[in-house]
Amino acid sequence: MKAIIQQNLSEPTSLTWSDAPTPVPGDGEVLVRIVAAGVNRADTLQAKGHYPPPTGTTDIIGLEAAGVIEDAHGACRPDGTPWADGEKVGVLLSGGGYAEYVAVPSGQLVPMPKGYSFVETASVVEVACTVWSNLMMTAELTAGDTLLIHGGGGGVGLFAIQVAKALGARVAVTAGSAEKLEVCRSYGADILINYREEDFAAVLKAEGGADVILDIIGAKYLDKNVSALAKDGHLVIIGMQGGVKGELNIGALLAKRGSISATGLRYRDRADKARIVAATVEHVWPMLESGQVTHHIDRVVPVADAAAAHAALLAGEITGKVVLQVTED
Amino acid sequence: MKAIIQQNLSEPTSLTWSDAPTPVPGDGEVLVRIVAAGVNRADTLQAKGHYPPPTGTTDIIGLEAAGVIEDAHGACRPDGTPWADGEKVGVLLSGGGYAEYVAVPSGQLVPMPKGYSFVETASVVEVACTVWSNLMMTAELTAGDTLLIHGGGGGVGLFAIQVAKALGARVAVTAGSAEKLEVCRSYGADILINYREEDFAAVLKAEGGADVILDIIGAKYLDKNVSALAKDGHLVIIGMQGGVKGELNIGALLAKRGSISATGLRYRDRADKARIVAATVEHVWPMLESGQVTHHIDRVVPVADAAAAHAALLAGEITGKVVLQVTED
Repeated sequence: MKAIIQQNLSEPTSLTWSDAPTPVPGDGEVLVRIVAAGVNRADTLQAKGHYPPPTGTTDIIGLEAAGVIEDAHGACRPDGTPWADGEKVGVLLSGGGYAEYVAVPSGQLVPMPKGYSFVETASVVEVACTVWSNLMMTAELTAGDTLLIHGGGGGVGLFAIQVAKALGARVAVTAGSAEKLEVCRSYGADILINYREEDFAAVLKAEGGADVILDIIGAKYLDKNVSALAKDGHLVIIGMQGGVKGELNIGALLAKRGSISATGLRYRDRADKARIVAATVEHVWPMLESGQVTHHIDRVVPVADAAAAHAALLAGEITGKVVLQVTED
Repeated sequence: MKAIIQQNLSEPTSLTWSDAPTPVPGDGEVLVRIVAAGVNRADTLQAKGHYPPPTGTTDIIGLEAAGVIEDAHGACRPDGTPWADGEKVGVLLSGGGYAEYVAVPSGQLVPMPKGYSFVETASVVEVACTVWSNLMMTAELTAGDTLLIHGGGGGVGLFAIQVAKALGARVAVTAGSAEKLEVCRSYGADILINYREEDFAAVLKAEGGADVILDIIGAKYLDKNVSALAKDGHLVIIGMQGGVKGELNIGALLAKRGSISATGLRYRDRADKARIVAATVEHVWPMLESGQVTHHIDRVVPVADAAAAHAALLAGEITGKVVLQVTED
């Protein structure tokens, strides 16, 4: 098959569409022919050597895709009914999405949301699982809560805004431009904060504090995030764009009885991923199919241009998602 | 009435048994005549000026006591039946325990465990609520989990060991002497760590990591606590004897999908305290009454010697609890 291969591990842009061995599905795995693959910031980290795949996972980049089952390999859905060759699916991956074929544990297959194309499906799998697992399974966001989302204009951010609004929360977002904030507003964000111009912690304090914060910045925002929390608030860190180590004011956290969780999907075991995927399909797919929550695709580029897609994401050009077209359906 | 009054706020040992106005129960409050009052490390902090009472709470020190209802003031139990004058009770307090009388919200009254004296009841109210709320309501400790308790020989520590064992957990403790560790062992602790001689993080790593850590140290242990966590582990900080601000390695926390919560009872509102007290009576009182969990009283001293009790606690002399005798029953 063809896949994106990084020619030089010390050169993150050396991504070429090259020959690679077609994967062979192992026990409990399904072989999927990929039509479209979503791009995530984590993929750019992997290209830089900062986010190695879990042991036993392919080196090929790519955490989500959509395509057609090539070999169902006897796999069944959570309800016990078998997956069939030729079915259209989305896949949550530990790696391998930038390719013509991927072998994926059956618990990480999802149906395409009704009305969704391959490109659209590939753009929502990872963000939907990330948003649902963090907002609901980790932070237990509740109707009436105030949620602060950093990077509101990103793929996770725009999706989180919509899911949180569907759940009855009030949503504050940070972003670095008026254009991104306007997109956030159009998806339902209530409180818009340009982090270049305003102190988000001061804004949130004036608004009564954030019951939940979904953070992609890490160290740089740690202290301000703690001060932005409401009583019994929960800071959930899913990215570290602003560094790995930061000073924690435990006294300030204790005064609020606050919690901090740092989570990710990629290194979870199969059972845990299957549990998250099943909950996401159960709760989020109906929101997608009713239109209550929608995808936001900034652009679709040919998979051979993966390096350009990464560059655009890192340059802050992307609102929502960029998707790689692997084949023409 | 008489109460312990701090004569000089800059002198933590200036605690004298002096005249004070008898409290008047407000709406939803009960007046209790105190027979015995438990001493907590937080009381020594308050005497040092580091732990002010919540707004509207008496300046008199003391977070737990036992005694007799002097004026039930129309208050009812959670099941709707009325409290009666003359009933023997324990009380969880925001302050005011070192005194002859205290006014307490009715949701913070507990029955005396069957077979328990006033002194014994006064020694368990705060630790029972602390242990139950943190291990179960915050960290959701599960049978088979490994729990690490710092300060295993303290009042909270010895109680937490027993509750965790009753719940089917494996318990590791740290303490600063062989004598304290032996007491921990006698209450069921499985892994004994003398922090003066061993690196607790290394011990826990070799044991597969801690699913839950109950910590009273704070900043000084933050980094080691994160490295002692198991995957999906939860660090619960309830004290800051080792400082308020510490560097958090978010990357290490994220690699484990770990959580950190910092909590306390004192500043919770009445409804929250009532919820915790009710859950503690429901789940922990049967353990006390069956003998599965027991108190550990190091010594009982006359209330007028409160300063000496604080000094003994701060000197590390106390294993388990020290209780102040206010009246002779």
